[in-house]
Amino acid sequence: MFTPEAGLFFALWSLPVSLKKYLLAPGPVPVPPNVLNAMAAPMIHHRSPDFVELFKGVKEDLKYLYQTTNPVLILASTGTGAMEGAVTNFLSPGDKAIFVNGGKFGERWGKILSAYGMQTVEIKVEWGRSVDLNDVKAALDANPDAKAVYVQASETSTGAAHDVQGIAALTRNRDTLCVVDAITAMGVTNVPMDEWGLDVVVSGSQKGYMLPPGLAFVGVSDKAWAFNERSTCPRFYFNFAKEKKALEGDQTAFTPAVSLIVGLREVLNMVKAEGIQNVFARHERLANATREGLKAAGLEIFPTGTPSTAVTAVVAPDGIDGQDIYKTLRTKYGVTAAGGQDHLKGKVFRIAQLGYADTFDTIIAVAAVEMAISTLGGKVNMGAGVKRAQELLVVK
Amino acid sequence: MFTPEAGLFFALWSLPVSLKKYLLAPGPVPVPPNVLNAMAAPMIHHRSPDFVELFKGVKEDLKYLYQTTNPVLILASTGTGAMEGAVTNFLSPGDKAIFVNGGKFGERWGKILSAYGMQTVEIKVEWGRSVDLNDVKAALDANPDAKAVYVQASETSTGAAHDVQGIAALTRNRDTLCVVDAITAMGVTNVPMDEWGLDVVVSGSQKGYMLPPGLAFVGVSDKAWAFNERSTCPRFYFNFAKEKKALEGDQTAFTPAVSLIVGLREVLNMVKAEGIQNVFARHERLANATREGLKAAGLEIFPTGTPSTAVTAVVAPDGIDGQDIYKTLRTKYGVTAAGGQDHLKGKVFRIAQLGYADTFDTIIAVAAVEMAISTLGGKVNMGAGVKRAQELLVVK
Repeated sequence: MFTPEAGLFFALWSLPVSLKKYLLAPGPVPVPPNVLNAMAAPMIHHRSPDFVELFKGVKEDLKYLYQTTNPVLILASTGTGAMEGAVTNFLSPGDKAIFVNGGKFGERWGKILSAYGMQTVEIKVEWGRSVDLNDVKAALDANPDAKAVYVQASETSTGAAHDVQGIAALTRNRDTLCVVDAITAMGVTNVPMDEWGLDVVVSGSQKGYMLPPGLAFVGVSDKAWAFNERSTCPRFYFNFAKEKKALEGDQTAFTPAVSLIVGLREVLNMVKAEGIQNVFARHERLANATREGLKAAGLEIFPTGTPSTAVTAVVAPDGIDGQDIYKTLRTKYGVTAAGGQDHLKGKVFRIAQLGYADTFDTIIAVAAVEMAISTLGGKVNMGAGVKRAQELLVVK
Repeated sequence: MFTPEAGLFFALWSLPVSLKKYLLAPGPVPVPPNVLNAMAAPMIHHRSPDFVELFKGVKEDLKYLYQTTNPVLILASTGTGAMEGAVTNFLSPGDKAIFVNGGKFGERWGKILSAYGMQTVEIKVEWGRSVDLNDVKAALDANPDAKAVYVQASETSTGAAHDVQGIAALTRNRDTLCVVDAITAMGVTNVPMDEWGLDVVVSGSQKGYMLPPGLAFVGVSDKAWAFNERSTCPRFYFNFAKEKKALEGDQTAFTPAVSLIVGLREVLNMVKAEGIQNVFARHERLANATREGLKAAGLEIFPTGTPSTAVTAVVAPDGIDGQDIYKTLRTKYGVTAAGGQDHLKGKVFRIAQLGYADTFDTIIAVAAVEMAISTLGGKVNMGAGVKRAQELLVVK
């Protein structure tokens, strides 16, 4: 009949349909509509003047994003390819390298170093903590022949950040490179390559760049280029010297991922229009509201170290499996977040607002987590988290 | 430096940028991505077999949406064009017609009737109220020669619904048509044309259809077709008999809005997949949560009659201009809602979750209204409204 109660009756028997999807994972991330549109334009040829013109601009604007005067290499690969290149282009088999292992991606540095026959010195960091600079200094002092320190600016698996500025201050006056995986940090939080004296900085398109996966970027300092000249590792596709030379002629060494570069053109225009400091401030504002909101909802933030701005790892409440929260978010609410990895599987879940993200993504994130835990019968102060996030995000 | 506090510092001096836009107005509404994609496909010709095949399906599925066995006409116009046709195809100059005027769109029926020289009998309804069936019965009894009753199923300007089922029950056994503007009702709330005995039902693409503006639809009963045969109003573009004949040959009388019909194909597939009763239940669930949420935030819902499922009109709190709420939502939060019209301007604002809408659109709507009123220094229980909406929308 003709009453609102009729609607409530419908609601009782109908299965709630999750019509819309929300991508709140730490990559891939939502791609802005203007970028999708640009990438859907007819294909252009990478040796044509149209492409070269576009590429020249992209090349310059990447320096703005990286806050460097050195060229930033553009690779058709995901971040891991660039991480491999950040080993093979600067070291030689048998070289000694220190790596900070505080999560899945720190561990990956170790695996790549071992794959190419390096002697590794591991700084083991409890997952969720940030590396202690004293430990880095001690490792450097104990290994004066270490050619490089490999570290993450933001460890995506644990939601903790490492003080790469502090590490670079330690390597600066030694014959040691500071190599940074900034894959979930670039375009999210301030990582000024030149000012901090970072030597090699790796990033990837599917995070702060707001692009689909498929592009990786590498900034290389003069000090690192000198290492490159002495490096004897076998390499072919990830040949940074060759890429640098190609870049001078406004090209890439091999076929570039054309549509992604077209998308990158759009993204860099957006970043320039907003201003990188504003981009960082926006991410900090959202990450802070997410953390404070989830805490107000009664949840615990996993990292005990400096929390990453890119991704928030949350401890699953007592009696609730973190994977169930992740699955409930996806299947009942259309929200794709991330679960825990390795020994954190089931113990944490992770949620990100990364790149094309704004106030209401945070509101959705906090509301959805509260609701999913409620669906699972877990303990949560529903509404309290959103209220706190609203208070932090209200425009004065 | 390297602390979350640095981010909070940024937040103090940076202007919050509303990166994303949310369309929560009572039309146009967000268009689903698969529909946008379909409409972006290369143009096809409207006399080609591809189009005819597509059109045959659309023609059938519109009957499902309308819950009728009669053909549903498809016009390249917005709803107002179809409203005009709903006058000119069934009446003759000098005919008497009753119209229910409870808002901007009820008023429009009166204007169209007058433009074509009808004698109008107005049932004036206070804005925000639903028409009293006793008033309709009295008007019919006093005017046994009235050829039709013109009414809105959902009066978009006030957020009130009229009982068109009840009105049709009154006209059914008289020589009078029941003509319904279902522009914000079709695909949103249950308006079963045949079951309720509605004679002419008008709808438009930019509401529950989730399409851009540019298509209008008209369902016509056998009783109305008989009126059509006697109607002598001047008409050319909106010639329903001609459209009906064209429809029999899987065409429209004039060039169809091809890309919108292609989009309609997608939309009808979505509606069929979800099931119309589920579509209605979803809208009722969201509208109910919006109303209850806003009430919990301390706000007053404007309509004192049956509230529309399509659009919620909200009274601006004391000391705050409704237009300022509307503008603040747009400029500070990226949320496009709607203000009040005519004498309601400044007194109310309107917010809709219509068509491609789900749980988190309601969460955004309630959160954004709370935050915008807070920005304006108004009185609102921030967070209380979202909490109530969450409770109503949580999946058990």
